[in-house]
Amino acid sequence: MGNPILVELTRGRRRESVHTGALAVARSNRELVGAIGNVEQPIFARSAIKPLQAVPLLETGAAERYGFGTREMAIACASHSGTSEHTATVTNLLLRVGLDVTALGCGAQEPLDVSASRALIRAGHAPTALHHNCSGKHAGMLATAVHKAEPIETYWMPDHPVQMRVLGTLEELTGRRLGRDVRGIDGCSVPNWAVPLADLATAFARFVTGEGLTRLRWRACQQLTEACWAEPRLVAGQGRLDSVVLDRLPGKVLIKAGAEGVYCGAFPAAGLGFALKIDDGGKRAADLVAGSLLGQFCPEAKDLGVAKPLQNFRGLMVGEIRAADALERLLAKFG
Amino acid sequence: MGNPILVELTRGRRRESVHTGALAVARSNRELVGAIGNVEQPIFARSAIKPLQAVPLLETGAAERYGFGTREMAIACASHSGTSEHTATVTNLLLRVGLDVTALGCGAQEPLDVSASRALIRAGHAPTALHHNCSGKHAGMLATAVHKAEPIETYWMPDHPVQMRVLGTLEELTGRRLGRDVRGIDGCSVPNWAVPLADLATAFARFVTGEGLTRLRWRACQQLTEACWAEPRLVAGQGRLDSVVLDRLPGKVLIKAGAEGVYCGAFPAAGLGFALKIDDGGKRAADLVAGSLLGQFCPEAKDLGVAKPLQNFRGLMVGEIRAADALERLLAKFG
Repeated sequence: MGNPILVELTRGRRRESVHTGALAVARSNRELVGAIGNVEQPIFARSAIKPLQAVPLLETGAAERYGFGTREMAIACASHSGTSEHTATVTNLLLRVGLDVTALGCGAQEPLDVSASRALIRAGHAPTALHHNCSGKHAGMLATAVHKAEPIETYWMPDHPVQMRVLGTLEELTGRRLGRDVRGIDGCSVPNWAVPLADLATAFARFVTGEGLTRLRWRACQQLTEACWAEPRLVAGQGRLDSVVLDRLPGKVLIKAGAEGVYCGAFPAAGLGFALKIDDGGKRAADLVAGSLLGQFCPEAKDLGVAKPLQNFRGLMVGEIRAADALERLLAKFG
Repeated sequence: MGNPILVELTRGRRRESVHTGALAVARSNRELVGAIGNVEQPIFARSAIKPLQAVPLLETGAAERYGFGTREMAIACASHSGTSEHTATVTNLLLRVGLDVTALGCGAQEPLDVSASRALIRAGHAPTALHHNCSGKHAGMLATAVHKAEPIETYWMPDHPVQMRVLGTLEELTGRRLGRDVRGIDGCSVPNWAVPLADLATAFARFVTGEGLTRLRWRACQQLTEACWAEPRLVAGQGRLDSVVLDRLPGKVLIKAGAEGVYCGAFPAAGLGFALKIDDGGKRAADLVAGSLLGQFCPEAKDLGVAKPLQNFRGLMVGEIRAADALERLLAKFG
């Protein structure tokens, strides 16, 4: 793809590995205030668009009808770690709709949280669909289907009204027509669409400013953002960058990770959205780029963007992971 | 680094992620019979050089003195999965030398093997240094130190005679002077050196042909190669590419993986060595490049190099991982 090196890992005095990628920072009118790499090539944002996928849950009135609060809204936006707190929240959401785990179409996944995973192993239990990091999104989609009296067995298929509503929301927020040529199936089986980083950054700027949105949609975006700030641990999990940031900077930063090295988010006060993709899908690099960007915009997040020492199994310092020159130069513009 | 894309992952009809890297195939006289990417830039081969690091264990006479057979030699070359078979082999090796787990300087690591890891968790046991994937290499280094009556507490430090012997072996086989500027500390705390892929491929060609080596060193290389073929499961573990290949193609292919996307190996009959590095350290890409190369050289390994479907948590086919055009073109030369 020819994108620049954004992150490098060193060992001794040398560079050992590198990660290339692209990053866009944009206003809601799609004006790029900063960009590096190819931000016009469509990329799959994966779970980074979950807050956008949750908009119909509120717009249709389903969330209100079933009395969903910040916990249910946050878990609908989540790629959660599968702890008992996460699974209980999903179970409770489903219960309010009259459903249970058997309605979930995401498949089973081991909890991402190491302690939760070990607890399951020790108890001799297999993971269920509740433990899947996307179970909250699926539960929210199911709630919308039940509310609208639509079939629930096929809610995850691309031509189901649930997914068509998601598509419409994405098309409005990104300003893109999203046809079959850019459609893929996500890890949890719902459709996902490849969208240029510039459009994803724009969509997130609109999500936090409401510019160009109906009052109803803007209110949905606001409620979801506030839910993520109110329940940061539910959106991801302990120690994960999105939860750390949402917990530390409520009101200042919206952020959501996606598989294969993606982050999307926004800085409401500045009216800016951002989106990044590491070409090789490397999470360690995506975390460092996102952390560096946040550190540049928010003094309180400065520590998230600094070079991090790499320790080996004995605890010896063997190198570090750090922003490469090209990324440093872009970020300096925001200084 | 500007290396070409070697591997691509698709989702739907689009490319989702890519991995760049470099690959060298060379004769023992350093003649490159095939190369892609920058094969002159030094890279850390990490555990891919373990067979070379084990040479002094045989050359010094330590292996003979302590009655080591193919199992002990194979585990000394291994990045093992930490199953009970692996740890028992390391324990036995140490016992023959009069040592135990407390002498190992590699640090503790959870078993790479999922079943072994779960068994430890269920039993409520913490992993030990025996479970570290490098414990066999460390045990072999300790055996050499005991045999030569050298201090055993510091065997892992760069200026210890054990590591100086390893360095001498690497310098002869690679044809490179390896100074401090290219030295790093490995994950298991012994020194590792950055070496161009062209030199690593040359070293492995020499390892399996003996060209330019003393009779003693050549015999050591032969015994280690034969041990890897005799005990393929000990060198890595069930389901891992190096073990699969050593098990299926004894006499035909030597192969060893290293962390951060490295493979080294050789085709003895053709007198060729190979070495590859994925720039971002991605193992999924290294496995595919190595498998594709082997498939090109050995009809019996054809299945290892083909595009592999990617399934999601429901078992739906969402895309594939495959060799990119640039790699296909290089491999076609070997057809």
